[in-house]
Formats: sequence, structure tokens, C-alpha cells
Amino acid sequence: MEGKEEDVRLGANKFSERQPLGTSAQTKDYKEAPPAPLFEPGELHSWSFWRAGIAEFMATFLFLYITILTVMGVSRSGSKCSTVGIQGIAWAFGGMIFALVYCTAGISGGHINPAVTFGLFLARKLSLTRAIFYIVMQCLGAICGAGVVKGFQPSFYQTLGGGANVVAHGYTKGSGLGAEIIGTFVLVYTVFSATDAKRNARDSHVPILAPLPIGFAVFLVHLATIPITGTGINPARSLGAAIIYNKDHSWDDHWIFWVGPFIGAALAALYHQVIIRAIPFKSGH
Amino acid sequence: MEGKEEDVRLGANKFSERQPLGTSAQTKDYKEAPPAPLFEPGELHSWSFWRAGIAEFMATFLFLYITILTVMGVSRSGSKCSTVGIQGIAWAFGGMIFALVYCTAGISGGHINPAVTFGLFLARKLSLTRAIFYIVMQCLGAICGAGVVKGFQPSFYQTLGGGANVVAHGYTKGSGLGAEIIGTFVLVYTVFSATDAKRNARDSHVPILAPLPIGFAVFLVHLATIPITGTGINPARSLGAAIIYNKDHSWDDHWIFWVGPFIGAALAALYHQVIIRAIPFKSGH
Amino acid sequence: MEGKEEDVRLGANKFSERQPLGTSAQTKDYKEAPPAPLFEPGELHSWSFWRAGIAEFMATFLFLYITILTVMGVSRSGSKCSTVGIQGIAWAFGGMIFALVYCTAGISGGHINPAVTFGLFLARKLSLTRAIFYIVMQCLGAICGAGVVKGFQPSFYQTLGGGANVVAHGYTKGSGLGAEIIGTFVLVYTVFSATDAKRNARDSHVPILAPLPIGFAVFLVHLATIPITGTGINPARSLGAAIIYNKDHSWDDHWIFWVGPFIGAALAALYHQVIIRAIPFKSGH
Amino acid sequence: MEGKEEDVRLGANKFSERQPLGTSAQTKDYKEAPPAPLFEPGELHSWSFWRAGIAEFMATFLFLYITILTVMGVSRSGSKCSTVGIQGIAWAFGGMIFALVYCTAGISGGHINPAVTFGLFLARKLSLTRAIFYIVMQCLGAICGAGVVKGFQPSFYQTLGGGANVVAHGYTKGSGLGAEIIGTFVLVYTVFSATDAKRNARDSHVPILAPLPIGFAVFLVHLATIPITGTGINPARSLGAAIIYNKDHSWDDHWIFWVGPFIGAALAALYHQVIIRAIPFKSGH
Repeated sequence: MEGKEEDVRLGANKFSERQPLGTSAQTKDYKEAPPAPLFEPGELHSWSFWRAGIAEFMATFLFLYITILTVMGVSRSGSKCSTVGIQGIAWAFGGMIFALVYCTAGISGGHINPAVTFGLFLARKLSLTRAIFYIVMQCLGAICGAGVVKGFQPSFYQTLGGGANVVAHGYTKGSGLGAEIIGTFVLVYTVFSATDAKRNARDSHVPILAPLPIGFAVFLVHLATIPITGTGINPARSLGAAIIYNKDHSWDDHWIFWVGPFIGAALAALYHQVIIRAIPFKSGH
Repeated sequence: MEGKEEDVRLGANKFSERQPLGTSAQTKDYKEAPPAPLFEPGELHSWSFWRAGIAEFMATFLFLYITILTVMGVSRSGSKCSTVGIQGIAWAFGGMIFALVYCTAGISGGHINPAVTFGLFLARKLSLTRAIFYIVMQCLGAICGAGVVKGFQPSFYQTLGGGANVVAHGYTKGSGLGAEIIGTFVLVYTVFSATDAKRNARDSHVPILAPLPIGFAVFLVHLATIPITGTGINPARSLGAAIIYNKDHSWDDHWIFWVGPFIGAALAALYHQVIIRAIPFKSGH
Repeated sequence: MEGKEEDVRLGANKFSERQPLGTSAQTKDYKEAPPAPLFEPGELHSWSFWRAGIAEFMATFLFLYITILTVMGVSRSGSKCSTVGIQGIAWAFGGMIFALVYCTAGISGGHINPAVTFGLFLARKLSLTRAIFYIVMQCLGAICGAGVVKGFQPSFYQTLGGGANVVAHGYTKGSGLGAEIIGTFVLVYTVFSATDAKRNARDSHVPILAPLPIGFAVFLVHLATIPITGTGINPARSLGAAIIYNKDHSWDDHWIFWVGPFIGAALAALYHQVIIRAIPFKSGH
Repeated sequence: MEGKEEDVRLGANKFSERQPLGTSAQTKDYKEAPPAPLFEPGELHSWSFWRAGIAEFMATFLFLYITILTVMGVSRSGSKCSTVGIQGIAWAFGGMIFALVYCTAGISGGHINPAVTFGLFLARKLSLTRAIFYIVMQCLGAICGAGVVKGFQPSFYQTLGGGANVVAHGYTKGSGLGAEIIGTFVLVYTVFSATDAKRNARDSHVPILAPLPIGFAVFLVHLATIPITGTGINPARSLGAAIIYNKDHSWDDHWIFWVGPFIGAALAALYHQVIIRAIPFKSGH
């Protein structure tokens, strides 16, 4: 049907004057970037590739350092009232993602999270080489960040749980896995929405503002799921804390914090590509 | 009187240099979008129409999931100090609206609330068909979101109130209704102010920033009225929690969370069209 | 001395490349708006004038409604931990100013505070007629806002202090006055900095962002001085609560919440005009 | 190798379409500002130089006033729950930096911190004369700000610690120094990232948004390290509180709050110039 096909190509803009709350007025053309190749020859010879990995390492290092140190400060105190509280922990995670995405977006894309890298890889936004390199650097950064926190006070770190993610007493492993899947979906869905190529064409300053909703998404998921799993939604963060903490009960649940985020990221990539961008419907053209 | 009529047409800009705190300098022409027809033929045949409904469903689903889960986490704990607290609940509601409006504004307008849809419909910003479709999808999304939260821990959900809105002990139903009316007025007034067509013409990046004051409005109303009604100002949110919770005392007050928000939205639409845009005064032209 | 005079005219931009943290690169000319006349003939015949007053009334009404209701909710509870807490009160005041300045800046300038109106009047940004009209409407709005809160629960309102500003036990009246002066200085200094005409010329989107630092300034002053005076820095807010509460001990200190803010606003206007804009040094030209 | 050299010059933009989360699309040329001379002749004769110093004094004065007053309000109360809490203290520090950087960025660059001035001096963004002048004015402002807080209630100020930075019981001096180094690294790294000349060329509005991540960085470091050192990362803030408090145990640790921030700032400058901007690799050209 011709009319429908055209609408798919035009996207949300056909009835734009009916959608007053938002950014529906498209004024510029946009061009979908072609899918990234799996292996980009020459990538390994460019300084920007290695620099991006270093930036991911540094960002994940600082992320774990600040957040796990905040968790330790809250755990140490008998009364949560004399600390920044659970809400302060949520701010630490969300706020760090906001600041670090803002700082590293222009260098590496600002992923700071293997699940985000995985979701963007599925959408073919970066090469497989780059995705694997990022994930390795994120995990190394996370281990170092948690290690420095432990170095400040090793005994407290071990007795207080080391910021490791486990499914809380009273919840099934299924609930924990579900919480990780939906939580990561919220994050990666926000990442896709905030960095959409079509949107960028319309509003050149969108990428500058994108770190704010992305950071908020992380904050909000922590508000909701800290009581369930301590909130992973970032396998590097979970791995770093687990390796430095290194106790059995944290390793028992560890698969949840890789499987959950990767499923959530895949669902968010699927939702964005199929429903929002309607890419399958356009493929015949 | 000619002078007065011209002033009405020029709006706030005649004395713009006297209004230093803000955005009074108008530099571009703007064109009021014509009122949306009640029934838009062809709308039902466009992918963007159905996609917008799916986006409203998804956004309201995630909204209820995160917020009701946060409410549950706070309610479960004996001491509020070991949770994110009531303030954390207010952040969850306001923050989710910020992030979701940011993400879905370009797809559906980002209503995520039947009262917002109703207010914008009264101002003839969308067709009746679309308004009803949005409201249905929002209610379905809300029911599913609350359902997932209950699925994580059914027994706790029922004993802890399920996040359902009721008028708190010590307040009359009239106070509860008043709180819902004024609270929704604050929200819909912010929506109208932040997405004003005249304003958009002046500052093309306004719609990008609009989600922030809109999310803050939701946060602020929660700070003020959680002790009174638990804060509805969103009939889909109240309906979703009520259906999943399904106890008599929550149904008893349920009408308040539809009547209040719809009256508040209507008053905000009236205030914006009559006082701010002075549309009746201009109708003769 | 010619060189110095030119520097004064060029402002901060001569050494702009030495000021990397910020917005020093001036790319467009700007024109200082001429001082507003004391009495603007015809102003009283314009719809925009009356509409601006109505917008100030409505904004101050909503400001008092949300903030005083939040104060009541915190005061009612035995344990602050089961409320949004004192920090939540600070968010309510600051957040409302952010949202309301965002919403009304294009209509009235978004003052919502007689001290802001007074400071801007001293800098000759609006006429005396308009300043007096705004202040009257702000006070009326504040009285109505506090009145609605009292209407919800009259007995609690009276026993819990009604959100009225008084100097706390343990502080002298001099300390209270000092806190009000410096607090209002912080606010009005932010207002002047964020809405500077020179800055607007450079960056056309500054006024859109201005509500955020202005709202934050209000939030921060509340964090610091709620323990001293409950934080006024807004005579309309103090008057509205005092009239509705109407007990002797709140009237005893009431002068502090007019004299302090007006002195603070005058100092901020002086600082901005003399130090930052160097207007006296330029007057000979 | 030619290809590599070109990549260094092009920076992150060669593979920009592979970095979807962010601002990698470079559309304008940028010009690196030449290094500031150590001594700028004529600087001492310009009004903008002296005005910048006054602005730094005023900003640091208001910074200490609001933050130390907030600390005192929290310390005075037996129960942290009836105050804004430790999280409120973190907001006071971060929020003031946000608002003050926003207000003074166009006048002095908005440093408000000797460590920031030192880091920017190392990157040759300002002259030695200006750096020393700024640091002196920042320290004077901090002393005056803390002095006013003490003036409000001298006896409480002394018994409650006066907001002075000390290494908390249970942590070694090495941990305290480490916390200051990494904390200041986070801040100065954010400052460099947010005000990068290359980035500014791409997105003219970046400097306007820069205060937000910078303020957040300060907030986040406070969340993490208040339990360790009370969080300095600003030698002027530490000096002001120490001089007004003036007790032995605060002077014992005082060197940490100068050495730590200066090392952290130097590392951040090094990281940004070498890794991110790759300046050494480009020097042959």
C-alpha cells in the first residue's frame, strides 16, 4: 500500500502538529549511517581506536571507584540516617553515568557498560572488534576501581559485602533476572532514543543533552531495584565488585548480572529497530 | 480599540525589554497549528499512529514498573531510613516522566498520562480518535507494569497497599479531590507552557528542554501530596495500581483519581488558552 | 587612559582565550536595553501588562500551595524519616522556582518574588508601575496559596506553624537578618548573571537555561538557612504564610523578611551594575 | 606512519559513525588557543583582570558561606533525619559549584578552586600572574565566607568542627591523600572534558551546559568521600575552614588538602593533554 509505505518512510512526522509535547517538527533530512562492518580494517592502526579504549577504561574505573566507595560509606554506618542513604547510592550511580557519558561521548561514545556496547553492536553501530575491545577495557577498569576502594579499607570491604550484586533474601532468582532484564531495557531504550540519528538530524544539540536522560535512567533503575539485586544493569560493574570481593555467594548469582543485562539490551535494540524505526518494513526499498 | 487588539496579537512581546528574566525576545514568526479535527481520516491507516500507541503503552508500562517497585521497596522496610525514602518515591515518579517524555516525545508526543492527553485534546492538539487510543494504551500499559511488580512478590504487594492511591486518614475526600485538581493543574500548566507553539517558534530547542520542567512538576506535586492521596494526577497510574491491587478501599476513592485530574487538566487548558494565549479575544480576526 | 576605557567597553572578552572554563567567546554584538521609564504611558492599556500580573499571581499561588503543603507534610510526621525530609522541603522551594520561572518567563519575566522585582526595578529593567503591580499580585497569590493549604486541614496548619518564617531559637535577630540578606543576594546575583543582556547576545539559548541555576540558587539557600529562619528570601512567601497563620510570634520577626530580602536584592543589583558591568565607568561615553 | 598521523590530527572523528552515543560528529574547524604566556604584559592594567579576581573572591565567599552553613545545620542536630542530611551537604557543595560556575564563567572562567586554576595553568590556559591572583582571591573569599558562618554562632562553630577537613577515624593518611587525589582528578577531568576547545568548536552551546557536569562531579565526589576526609578537593575551601576553626587536629592533616588536589589536578591535565588531545604526538607538525 503506497500511503502506508510513505508514512513509514516519513516516520512520526506526518501528523507532527498533533504531537505537541515534544520534538516532532522535523526540519532537516537525515541519513541513516550504514551498518558498521564486523571487522573494520585499519581500525587497529588508528590512535582514536586505542584512545577510545583507554577512555572506556578510565571512565569505568572512576565509575566503580566513586559508586562502590559511596556504597561502603553507607554500609559502614549503623544508622543510614547519618549517611547519604540508599537514595545517595542511586544518585552516585546515575550521576556518575551522566558526568562520564558527558565527558567521554566525544572520545569513545561513552558506553561505560558492556550491555550498552552489546546493544549498540546488535544495532550495528560499531564493529565487533571495537565492541570486544570496549568490553575488555570496561571490565579491567571496573576491577581496578573496586580494587582501589578495597585498598582504602580491606577489612571493612570484605565484611560489608564489597558492593557486589546478589539477589536479596526474599526474592527468587527469576525475579532478580527479570529486574535486571527490565532495568537494562530502560537504560538501553533511553540510550537509543536519546541518540537516534533521525533526532540528531533535527536537533543538532540533542547529543549534548543525551547524557542527562541516560544518567537519570540509571538513577531510576537503582531507586527501584536496589532492594532486589543491588542493581547491576552493567556487567562490568558486577564483575569488578565480584572479583575484588570474591566470595562464593556473590559468584552464585553472578550469571544473572551478565545474562539479564544482555537480554535487556537485546530487547531494547529490537524494540527500537523494529517498532520505533520500523527498519524491517523499509527493507524492501 | 485598535491598540489593544494589536497588543493581543503581539502577545507578551510589546514590552519585551522590560522582562529581563526570561525568553521574551521574539525573533521569528510563528504559526498557530490549526485545531486538530475530531476524526482524522487515514490516521488509522498510518504506521505512525499505531506506533505512537505502542510507544504510549511501553512508556506507561515502564513508568508503573519503576515507580510501583520503588514504592514497594520503601514500604517493605521497617525503617524508612534504610530505603530511598518518600523523597526517593517522588524522584522515581518525576524522573521517569522526565526520561520517558524525552524518549517518546518524538514518537507519540510523550503524554504517558490520560489527563495530559485530555488537556491537549481540549486544546484541539490531537484528534478524538487518537486521544481515546492513547488513553486505552496508557491504561493497558499501566496495568501490565503494576502486574509485573506484583509478580515479583505477590504477598508483599497485597499487604503493603500495592501503590494504590487512596485519600489518607485525616483528610476529607474534598481535600483529596482538591489536591488532585491543583496537582494536575500544575502538571498540565507546565506541559502547555513548555510546549507553546509561540515559544517553539522563538527558540527551536525549547521542545528538547521541555521534559525537564515537566518531570520536575511531577516530582514537586509528589513532594506535596504524597501524604494526602499518594499522588495520582495520572488516571492510568491510579487505575493500573487499583486493578492489580483490587481491594475495596482502593476502589472506594478511585473516582477521585479520574475526576480530579480531568478537572485539573481542563482548568489548565482553559487558563492557557484564555489568559496566556488570549485566543477568545483574537477570534474576531 | 584609552586602553583601559576600551577594556571596560570590551568587558571580559579581551583575554577570552585565558578563561577556558565558560562562555567568554563573544561572537555577536549586544545592545544594552535603555533603562525602563518610571511610568510607561499606555502600559495600563495593554493586555500583556494585565496578563503578566495574572501570571505572577498564578505562579506565586502555585508556589505557596506546593511548598507550604510540603512543609506541612514534613511537620505532621513524628519521624522526619517517613517524610520527604528537610531536604525535600528545599527541593520543593527550588524546584517550584525552576518550573515556574521556566513557565512564566515569556509572559511576565517570571519574578514570583518581590525581592527579584525590586532588584530588577533598581537596575531599571521594568517601570515603577509594573514593579508595584507585580508585587501586589505576588502577595495576593501567596495569601491564596497558603489559604488553600490551611483549608485542607485548618487545625494541623495552626499547631504546626503554618510554614511561617521566624528566627529559630538560638539565633539572634541580627543573624536572621544577615542570613536573609546574603541568601537573597545569592538568588538575585544568579538572576542578574543568568539573564545578562551581554550574555544573551552571545548565546541566544541562555535565557532558556537560566531557570535551572535560578531554581538551584533557591534550593541551596534553603539547604543552608532553613535551620536559621526557615528561609524567606521572598517577602511574598513570608507574608502569605504569616497572614494565614496570623500568630504574634510570627509577626514579631516579620520585618526581617522584607528588610533582609530588599537589602540583599539591592546589593546584588549594585554588585552586578558596578563590578560586573562597570556601568559607572562607562557613563562618560 | 602517515595514516596514523592523520588520525591523530583528526582525533575521534574518523570513525564517528561508530560512536553513536555522543557528540562525535565534527562539523566545524577548531583552532587550539595558543598557550597563555607566563606573564601577560598589560594584564595588570585591564579592568577585566581585576574584575575577574573580584568575581573569584565573591564566588568563593558565597561557596563557603552556603556550604559551611549547611554543614553546621546538619552537625547541630542530634538526629540527622531532622536535617538535610549528609546527602544535603553533598548537594550544597555540588549545587553551589554548578550555580557559581554558571554565573562567573563569563567573567573569570569560574574556577572557584585553586586546584582547578592550577590544572588549567599547567595546560597553559591562563598566565602565571592570573593563576596566582585567582588563588589568592579564592583563599581570601573562603576565609571570609567561613568567618561569616562562625559569626552567626561562634560557640557552635567551634564545638561542631567548623566544617574543617580532617581524615576520619579509621582511615590512614594515605587513604585520605588518595581520596583527595582521585576526587580532584574526577573534578578537573570533567572541567577539561566539558570545556575542550575542539568540542566547543563543534557545539557552540557546550560551554553553557558545562556547569552541570562540573557541579555534578563535585556532588558525586562528596557522596563518596565525605566519610573519609569530609571531602576537600578544593584547597581554598579547606584553608578557609581551617583558619576560622583553627584547632591543632585540623592543621595536622591540612597538607593533604593542598598536596592531594594539586596532584589530582596535575594528573587530570596530563591525562587530557596526552591521552585525549594527543598533543605530544602532534608536536612535530
